Order: sequence, then structure tokens, then C-alpha cells
Amino acid sequence: MYFKCENFQRCGAFKMRGATHAVNCLSEEELQKGVATHSSGNHAQALALAAKTKGIKAYIVMPENAPKVKVAGVRDYGAEITFCQPTLAARESTLEQVVQRTGASFIHPFNNYRVIEGQATATLELIEEIDSMDYILAPVGGGGLLSGTALSARYLSPQTRVIGCEPEGADDAYQSFKSGEIIPSINPNTISDGLLTSLGEKTFEIIQHAVHDIMRVSDANTIAAMKLVWERMKLVIEPSAAVPLGVVLSNKEFFTNKRIGIILSGGNIDLSRLPF
Amino acid sequence: MYFKCENFQRCGAFKMRGATHAVNCLSEEELQKGVATHSSGNHAQALALAAKTKGIKAYIVMPENAPKVKVAGVRDYGAEITFCQPTLAARESTLEQVVQRTGASFIHPFNNYRVIEGQATATLELIEEIDSMDYILAPVGGGGLLSGTALSARYLSPQTRVIGCEPEGADDAYQSFKSGEIIPSINPNTISDGLLTSLGEKTFEIIQHAVHDIMRVSDANTIAAMKLVWERMKLVIEPSAAVPLGVVLSNKEFFTNKRIGIILSGGNIDLSRLPF
Repeated sequence: MYFKCENFQRCGAFKMRGATHAVNCLSEEELQKGVATHSSGNHAQALALAAKTKGIKAYIVMPENAPKVKVAGVRDYGAEITFCQPTLAARESTLEQVVQRTGASFIHPFNNYRVIEGQATATLELIEEIDSMDYILAPVGGGGLLSGTALSARYLSPQTRVIGCEPEGADDAYQSFKSGEIIPSINPNTISDGLLTSLGEKTFEIIQHAVHDIMRVSDANTIAAMKLVWERMKLVIEPSAAVPLGVVLSNKEFFTNKRIGIILSGGNIDLSRLPF
Repeated sequence: MYFKCENFQRCGAFKMRGATHAVNCLSEEELQKGVATHSSGNHAQALALAAKTKGIKAYIVMPENAPKVKVAGVRDYGAEITFCQPTLAARESTLEQVVQRTGASFIHPFNNYRVIEGQATATLELIEEIDSMDYILAPVGGGGLLSGTALSARYLSPQTRVIGCEPEGADDAYQSFKSGEIIPSINPNTISDGLLTSLGEKTFEIIQHAVHDIMRVSDANTIAAMKLVWERMKLVIEPSAAVPLGVVLSNKEFFTNKRIGIILSGGNIDLSRLPF
């Protein structure tokens, strides 16, 4: 197994790739008006830092109940925060107001081709370093990382099969992949808090065409995989990042004697609330 | 700051370097009789693995109350374990019996020039990669790592000053360094469980001649440094490994604008007993 350590990425997760690429693709005119998004997670921090690095404004809509540490992180990067009710409807309407007021470009966390292209660079780098992988495994939430992974593999290592990995308690991507239509995530329940989101239509289309399969794993096996990475590889990774290794360890026969690339998607976790 | 990640070393700590080099320096005749040591810590596992890799026997004397996980680790590497009472006298007399019975070569955990040479290779590699460091900081327990660090710096980067870093609650190396004679560690009390040991006469002599200074740090600052490394660098390190960064963070003015190399000595820690 070969591990791509996105926990070492700036902001501690692969999200920095997509946010950076999306910002870099804006025109001069767009740059002057800044970027905007709604997010309570890693994408908000990544976009705020990408904007700061580029010297432009970032407007982030966050729910009132977002963790203080994440609000502080976004604020430290100089972004302007607008709080809203903690519902998707409130997020979207507040974001629309912000965009109308500022003219900022909305950078969706995953359903955006520039973001997907950015996430694809993790697998591009992995393929540049490790050849002849039989499989590459990536976790799937909204599908930005998985669709980028699949595009890089298809164009740069066509013999490698890409498998999306998903918690059993939030298996909307599995359901969607098998049924052929987007089935939203309803009451997802998993420790992998980065994988609660449903697929978008852009990510789903790529996943349908370029991903070989989606496999599921129990939270217990995810936690066991995460502990193994902490104890033996000495890497701090978050539960979502342990999902692909959890899939391998609970399907050992299937993966025996295979060369497997694994995207360790991130390492942002509250150390005072570990599952072991 | 530049970090040498010995937490990624085999067995999870720099100890593998000294044990491997010591084994590799044995004659054919000595190899046939194997190696022996008394240890309840990382050196026992490292020597067992080094012996296994070389295809020779390892005899390890361990106290009856050694942590089960460490006993299991040594046994997994195929070493022969002899248990003894948990006193230094019992360890030494039991080891002597083992050596007399087997003819094995005793490999001391630190007071052994081959072991010191092996530990020195961590800093050799750091200097090969990073030039013009003003300081290199290493933790000091028995002094094997610190004396090896100082030898590598003196021969390969003479303008770099080496500073030993020690917990306030186990400051025998500091006391010895300042007084000019070995002052043993009495009732040491620190979370840095790899640094409880007193200096040996071989390590002390090198430290006296080649180390620039020894600085101390409180356990509270060590824990804060350790948490910072986990949270921001996404590395699992043990408390002993965080002592040098703790020294830097509690002496910021002294180290301002300096290029500092830090040996992250290891990452073996019980995840169910974290200090945060």
C-alpha cells in the first residue's frame, strides 16, 4: 500500500488543492471581487487561505453553531464571515445575498470543475511517484476528491481501477452509484464527519463514468484502521481519511497481492475527542 | 525549524539506528553467539529487530512488570526473554547470567560507542539535507542520542551548536554538565518517560566536550509542544520527542531568527493515555 499524505497538505486536508486551483483560474476582474462559499468545514478554511495567499477577499457563510475553532481559523486567514441559521436553506439564501452584494465568485466545495481539477492533483502526484498501481482508493462525501482521483487515474494510469470508499452509515454515493441516479444522504450517521454530504450532479456524472466501484465500511473498522495508522505509521489522520484503509482491512482477500494507492485525505481532528 | 522525524524510523524511534550499527559491527564469531541487553523500553525492541534482521539470536532481560505491549513486541521479533525482579541490581545480575550461559555480546542501550555511532547517523542525515543550521537540539536521557548528535555536528557541521534538552523533573544531565561530574538521576519525575535514565561515563565525556549547553523545560511546556506537533504537523510523537521544541517555545527570544534542527526522537505512545 502507498499512502498519499494529504494530512500534510496546507490547512491539513486535500481541500487546499481545489480551493487554490479555483482561485487561480479566476480572471483579473473576478479576482477583484473576491470569492465566497458556505461551509462549516475544511473548505471554508482552505478557500480563506487560498484567497489570502492570492491577496483577494473571501466571504464565508457559516452556521451560527459552527465549531469555534473553525470560525477562528477562517477569521485568522482574514476572511469576512457572515453567520446564518444552521439550515441548508439559510446557508444558500445568505450566500446568495453575499454574492449579490459583493459580486464575489461562488466556489462550491465540490460541485465545481475547477475544484475537482484541483483535487485531482493529489492522485496526479501519487501516480508520478508510484507506478503500476492496481487500485487507488479515496473516500467519498460530496465526491470532489473521488471524481478528481478518477479523472487523474483515467488519463494518467488507465490500467488502475479507482474505488470510492464510504461509511456504511452514510452510503448515499454507494446507493447512487448502484441505482444510476443521485440518492441524497438522509440522516447520515458516521464518525467520518467529512463524508456526510451528498453527491453533486457534476461529481456524480464523473463518478458514474470513471469510478470502478464503491465499497462500504463500518465505523468500527474505520476506527481500527485509524488507530493502526496513528500507532504504526505515526500519522495523525481524521476518521474520514481512514475509511479507505478500513475498506482494505475488511476485504483482505479481495486486495491480496495488489498494489494499492490510498489517499489519506486529511488530519483535522479534535484531540480531546478521540474515538480510542 | 527543521525536524528529523525519527518517529518514522523502524520500531518508531532512533534506537533502531544504534542497535543496528552495534549488531553490524560484530565479528562472525560474535554474531553466532547473539546479542543481549536489559531494557524495558525501545532499545529492547530495536535490538530484537536488529538481531532478527541479521539472522542472529537476541536475549532480552526484562522486568516482570514491563508493559505487556512491549513484551509482546520483543517476543514478536523472535527474541528470547528472561524476566527478573524490577530492580537495577536484578536486571544486571540476570543479564550477567544470560551472558555467561550464552556468550552473547552485551549491547548497552547508550553507554556503548557502536550504539552512539549509530544514533549519530540521524544528525548526519539531517546535515546532509539542511545546511547552515545555527543549532541542533536533541533530548537527553542516557545520552546516546545527544552524544551521537554532538559528534556528527562537530565533524560535519562545526559551526552548528548542539544543545541537549531535558525535562526539569529529570535534570541529571544538566546538573552533571554544569558540575563537571556525573550526578545520577534520583527519583526523576516527568511525563517524558524516555528520559528517566542517568548519563553513562562514555556519553558524559562526549557531551562535556562536544555539547554547547543543556536547557531544561517544564512538563507543561513539553505537553504544549507535543500537542502543537500533533495538531499542526499531524505527527504522532511521544513526550520525550517534544522536549526540544518545548525548549524553543519557552525560550523564543534566544532562538529568534536562528536556523534550528530538531530531532523528533520517537513516536511510541499509548494512545489510551494521552496527556491532553
